[in-house]
Amino acid sequence: MTELRMPELKLDADGLVAAVIQDDATGDVLMVGYMDAEALRRTASEGRVTFWSRSRQEYWRKGDTSGNIQVPRSIALDCDGDALLIRVDQTGPACHTGARSCFFTPVDMVDAGEP
Amino acid sequence: MTELRMPELKLDADGLVAAVIQDDATGDVLMVGYMDAEALRRTASEGRVTFWSRSRQEYWRKGDTSGNIQVPRSIALDCDGDALLIRVDQTGPACHTGARSCFFTPVDMVDAGEP
Repeated sequence: MTELRMPELKLDADGLVAAVIQDDATGDVLMVGYMDAEALRRTASEGRVTFWSRSRQEYWRKGDTSGNIQVPRSIALDCDGDALLIRVDQTGPACHTGARSCFFTPVDMVDAGEP
Repeated sequence: MTELRMPELKLDADGLVAAVIQDDATGDVLMVGYMDAEALRRTASEGRVTFWSRSRQEYWRKGDTSGNIQVPRSIALDCDGDALLIRVDQTGPACHTGARSCFFTPVDMVDAGEP
């Protein structure tokens, strides 16, 4: 069995770090979930993205119910250790609404373009 | 003055949502910061990404000190209202270390490739 070197995570008050999930094929950001060290260890060792569900307070291996699994292709930790970026092969939609990405609601901006 | 329709944010225990910053030109994920409704309002109205700094407990308009500003090109809220995706024009490096992106530390994975 391969020994994984797990990085030191800087956990928030809930004991979690944010995990940004990016489509490895398109570069689209699909969703943000949360992980503790055990969720990261499972993700890296099982080859299936596993979050900690803040609402259900349990581990949540993405796709076990829906079939819309995420296979990690690379995992990176940020400079201060409190966020992960995971590039994945996404099967089906990432969002529970059926959308490919969870980020489908635009927020207004003041138009800063030239007249 | 343009009236901005601000979305309802689902704030965490600290009163914040995660904001994923993506390079609009390359698709690279540059960093994750945190925002409250006021930081989002400033970001959308001033055309400069502004975070709430959890360590310094103050608003932090990215680049005011370093010059490495972020100009938002689009802002999207996720399906459950607790994360933002902001595509930006990034001047200089996004990371305080001088790296283009904060996500430069790879995390080991068990090799799932074929033999």
